[in-house]
Amino acid sequence: MSKVTADTSISVDGFSAGVNQRLDAPFGDGVGEDGIRLHRWMFEAAEENAAELAALTAAGAYIMGRNMFTPGRGEWDLDWKGWWGDDPPYHAPTFVLTHHPRDPIEMEGGTTFIFVTDGIEAALEQAKAAAKGRDVKIGGGVETVRQYLRAGLIDELHFALSPVVLGQGEAMFSGMDLPALGYRVTEHQATENATHIVLSR
Amino acid sequence: MSKVTADTSISVDGFSAGVNQRLDAPFGDGVGEDGIRLHRWMFEAAEENAAELAALTAAGAYIMGRNMFTPGRGEWDLDWKGWWGDDPPYHAPTFVLTHHPRDPIEMEGGTTFIFVTDGIEAALEQAKAAAKGRDVKIGGGVETVRQYLRAGLIDELHFALSPVVLGQGEAMFSGMDLPALGYRVTEHQATENATHIVLSR
Repeated sequence: MSKVTADTSISVDGFSAGVNQRLDAPFGDGVGEDGIRLHRWMFEAAEENAAELAALTAAGAYIMGRNMFTPGRGEWDLDWKGWWGDDPPYHAPTFVLTHHPRDPIEMEGGTTFIFVTDGIEAALEQAKAAAKGRDVKIGGGVETVRQYLRAGLIDELHFALSPVVLGQGEAMFSGMDLPALGYRVTEHQATENATHIVLSR
Repeated sequence: MSKVTADTSISVDGFSAGVNQRLDAPFGDGVGEDGIRLHRWMFEAAEENAAELAALTAAGAYIMGRNMFTPGRGEWDLDWKGWWGDDPPYHAPTFVLTHHPRDPIEMEGGTTFIFVTDGIEAALEQAKAAAKGRDVKIGGGVETVRQYLRAGLIDELHFALSPVVLGQGEAMFSGMDLPALGYRVTEHQATENATHIVLSR
């Protein structure tokens, strides 16, 4: 059955930078030098982490917050088509949460950005339909993943807990009672550069 | 040189229950069923964790908050001599932070409880003198460890990051910018049931 998933890296002091890191954008977005250390597991011991890396690119549809798609706010700059060039790494329908309507943008390589103005649940319904039985991945940013977690709409949150402290950033689980939301740790795998955790409902 | 250390277990959502867990009080204090899972690393793969377990009992003096010594508040109940029976597991001078003066209590096995009313820095000075060159361990609870961390007075915080979510409790690093305080991850060791991290200044 189609699952709703999200992936992130989290520092030991709880900050998640670079949600939606992936092979061709390994630091995610808006991540500084500390984020590089956060994602070291992707570069070292790659064989050991092969399953986790493969999982990053397996979804049939993606959802992201508008702030992950663009640095712009308010009305759209229609020239902006995301950070990722002509061939974004999603290769699938990608739903962007926004308050400002915009026509879909078809990119090369199978990525189509579709703008959803009626909330996270409507976006998820559309993404599930578009994924045609494959998983839907909440691509980020942190606040978008938090919204879906709080609503109990993520089936599996995969994260790499990296042995770094960031001190500031977006705290993924701050103020969130995961057990009360039905989440528990269902898988964990320690590797040299990260501990991989799966939270499931 | 004598170091100031603290040990704890932390859940992946950042909660630290059972500060000062140790071989003969493995859940620490005030920990429920989730805390048992938090400390699973102490029971399984014991050989792999031998160094971490040994480190829990190596200090020459301890410091703890009053709330860790007693459930009482306000004036002392002089019949209360801690949770640990006649032979507490510290086997060393143990300084208790309190606003209420009390004479020292000499227990069996080398533990003496000494009550300090003039703050965390004074307690640390006394503990360093009493430790005679061995380490001083901040035994807990969480808020006491946080006070010493915020003051930059802990040289090494050892913690086991366990693959559980607790959802509530005391958040060890909440509101604390560890890099700004001079802390970074200096050691990490992944084992089957926990990732052992050392934060140092």
